[in-house]
Amino acid sequence: MVAGVIPFSTPEAVRGIRIGTAEAAIKRPGRQDLVVFEIAPGSSCAAVFTKNAFCAAPVVLARSHLQNSAPRYLLINSGNANAGTGAQGMHDAVRTCEILAQHVNCKAEEILPFSTGVIGLPLPMDKFEIAIPKALAVLREDAWESAARAIMTTDTVPKAISRSVTLRGTKVTISGIAKGAGMIRPDMATMLSYIATDAAVSAPVLQSMLESAVERSFNRITVDGDTSTNDACVLIATGKSGAPPLDSDTGADAARLQAALNEVSEFLAEAIVRDGEGATKFIRIDVNGGKSTAECRAVAYTIAHSPLVKTAFFASDANWGRILAAIGRAGLSNLNIDAVRVALNGVPIVETGGRAAGYTEEAGTKAMQPTDITISVDLGRGSARDMVMTCDFSLDYVRINAEYRT
Amino acid sequence: MVAGVIPFSTPEAVRGIRIGTAEAAIKRPGRQDLVVFEIAPGSSCAAVFTKNAFCAAPVVLARSHLQNSAPRYLLINSGNANAGTGAQGMHDAVRTCEILAQHVNCKAEEILPFSTGVIGLPLPMDKFEIAIPKALAVLREDAWESAARAIMTTDTVPKAISRSVTLRGTKVTISGIAKGAGMIRPDMATMLSYIATDAAVSAPVLQSMLESAVERSFNRITVDGDTSTNDACVLIATGKSGAPPLDSDTGADAARLQAALNEVSEFLAEAIVRDGEGATKFIRIDVNGGKSTAECRAVAYTIAHSPLVKTAFFASDANWGRILAAIGRAGLSNLNIDAVRVALNGVPIVETGGRAAGYTEEAGTKAMQPTDITISVDLGRGSARDMVMTCDFSLDYVRINAEYRT
Repeated sequence: MVAGVIPFSTPEAVRGIRIGTAEAAIKRPGRQDLVVFEIAPGSSCAAVFTKNAFCAAPVVLARSHLQNSAPRYLLINSGNANAGTGAQGMHDAVRTCEILAQHVNCKAEEILPFSTGVIGLPLPMDKFEIAIPKALAVLREDAWESAARAIMTTDTVPKAISRSVTLRGTKVTISGIAKGAGMIRPDMATMLSYIATDAAVSAPVLQSMLESAVERSFNRITVDGDTSTNDACVLIATGKSGAPPLDSDTGADAARLQAALNEVSEFLAEAIVRDGEGATKFIRIDVNGGKSTAECRAVAYTIAHSPLVKTAFFASDANWGRILAAIGRAGLSNLNIDAVRVALNGVPIVETGGRAAGYTEEAGTKAMQPTDITISVDLGRGSARDMVMTCDFSLDYVRINAEYRT
Repeated sequence: MVAGVIPFSTPEAVRGIRIGTAEAAIKRPGRQDLVVFEIAPGSSCAAVFTKNAFCAAPVVLARSHLQNSAPRYLLINSGNANAGTGAQGMHDAVRTCEILAQHVNCKAEEILPFSTGVIGLPLPMDKFEIAIPKALAVLREDAWESAARAIMTTDTVPKAISRSVTLRGTKVTISGIAKGAGMIRPDMATMLSYIATDAAVSAPVLQSMLESAVERSFNRITVDGDTSTNDACVLIATGKSGAPPLDSDTGADAARLQAALNEVSEFLAEAIVRDGEGATKFIRIDVNGGKSTAECRAVAYTIAHSPLVKTAFFASDANWGRILAAIGRAGLSNLNIDAVRVALNGVPIVETGGRAAGYTEEAGTKAMQPTDITISVDLGRGSARDMVMTCDFSLDYVRINAEYRT
């Protein structure tokens, strides 16, 4: 079940990136669940990671490796998060890098490891020994779709996109994939997402561009408010397009590339929300008229995390009382409730502290019928704004999360 | 459905308090939904109210009346919260007090109004005109059980308790009732709760005692994290027991009364959680070893609000990875995850950043079978502690909140 439509088309290859997948049967047999990204020498790499204190062993290791070396490979598995696994987990994460390093004749520090799946179980190391050479044997440029499928856990559809821009006459491609459906409330990072471009971008500029794109996409979505232990988003620039290198994040070329990167990351972030566990509605919460972006974001997230709002949306119930109650507990000091206005898909439902003049239950019910709903909140006390995307809270959300692991 | 057992016995009468109930058919006919408390002259009254910025008209009015007069009556209705009703809502709340005042020949300011139920609909004033004299006609001392039933909304059982203590040879009674099952995350207050004693206590001491009791009971529970617009908790002391007046909150008598009041409020708070919408599990989260009470509380509430933890408990799944993920995103700086220990009903499940030595899935599954579960977290970095009570997140929670109002 997906709220609305998540368009899928096979991503374009990115020169300088080859991808191999294999069936490691980490959680269960019958699907590809291991991915190797091979990165051309001379590429730049940027990344953001979860801020959860209980971040998984591969996150700790990937962050450390990235500080010391330019990555040559990404090694990703689904089915097991290698989180909450203590010293053994770190030992195993190191070992997965060593296994790959032996096969490709690089240093283990030149590999970034990523894991997603069940928390708390040890990685089945024997399966990595067997599957890694299998993935290496099938490395090719056009395996982005296979990778998008192999990183899925509770996702119901693969999430991938390509965009191209022209930088001084040279076509540059950006392709990206992402996975995530539950434990989604990214905090300076996202669930797993891998984006690559054949543009040439210096590492500091690439990191700045990634952080800028993430801030407006993955950092503005929530499914259930639970920040994962394994979130990571990686952006690689191989430089193989032949376009001149970008050494600054200002200028027309940087702006074009940033815009395309924003589009890719916003598409993937929206896809994660639409594929949110049990989602039947896609909800965009626009908060305007705040004193600061931070307070607009606080209001948007309080609405987005309210179980009462989310269950009402599941029922297509224009229960604006629950939206007001959420705004009221968002912690804003001296909020003048008479100045607050709320609309659902453009239908004004709240003004001057109560039901909008002219509002009817019929109009509210009609506004709630589409799969895509925008909640517009005007706090009436400033000019700041922010936005968060979320989904509803359905019977299937509970079913999925009561049954996962069983 | 109640998680475990909520014992019910008819509360004892409190000398100086008479109660009348009536069927006003505010939401639907067929049940008592209006309550009048008559308070003997000379009584003291204390109260705490919701901190939600969108607090309902009756909350604003009750707070104002309490500052200016000693209350002679409480007027409570269920079925309509008179919240999100703007200027009309305030006009209506004032009018309900005026109607009652005319019948009993007191000032409208001597009445505290309370409403609970659907948000955003105007109060049906004609029904108050009819029902108030009916409630006054049946005022009696032993109607506590009727009142406990009349204030219910999505509650499945009434919640009431009595305790008695002896103050200098005189028996003193404390009786209390409460309602609440959803939109429960009290913040310096609670859902509706009314407690009365025939002890003689000065108003400032009574307020101090109430705040102390609320802080350890109603302010330590959550069902869904949604703070209501209408929370209120009222404590009345009539002095009709004949016990000597308490003018200080120190001393043996005050301690005895405080202890009994704590017992009453803790019982009612626990009853609200056990009757939480769709609840099948009662979960107590004890967090020890923190640097401060505040950080222990933050960890406890982050666990208590995690949809992933709550759905795992619904499935009786010892999914400690989700508990760790919640602890990790609670915002504690420099948390040493290797020092964190977690146990479920006494079974150690996490230590040194991973699964506890000797832990088996069988032991975890067995620990999850009882209705009552205690999650014990030791942060291993101090001596502070705190506690929060919550319930699980079931299919019925979604059903109830997707269907409420329809």
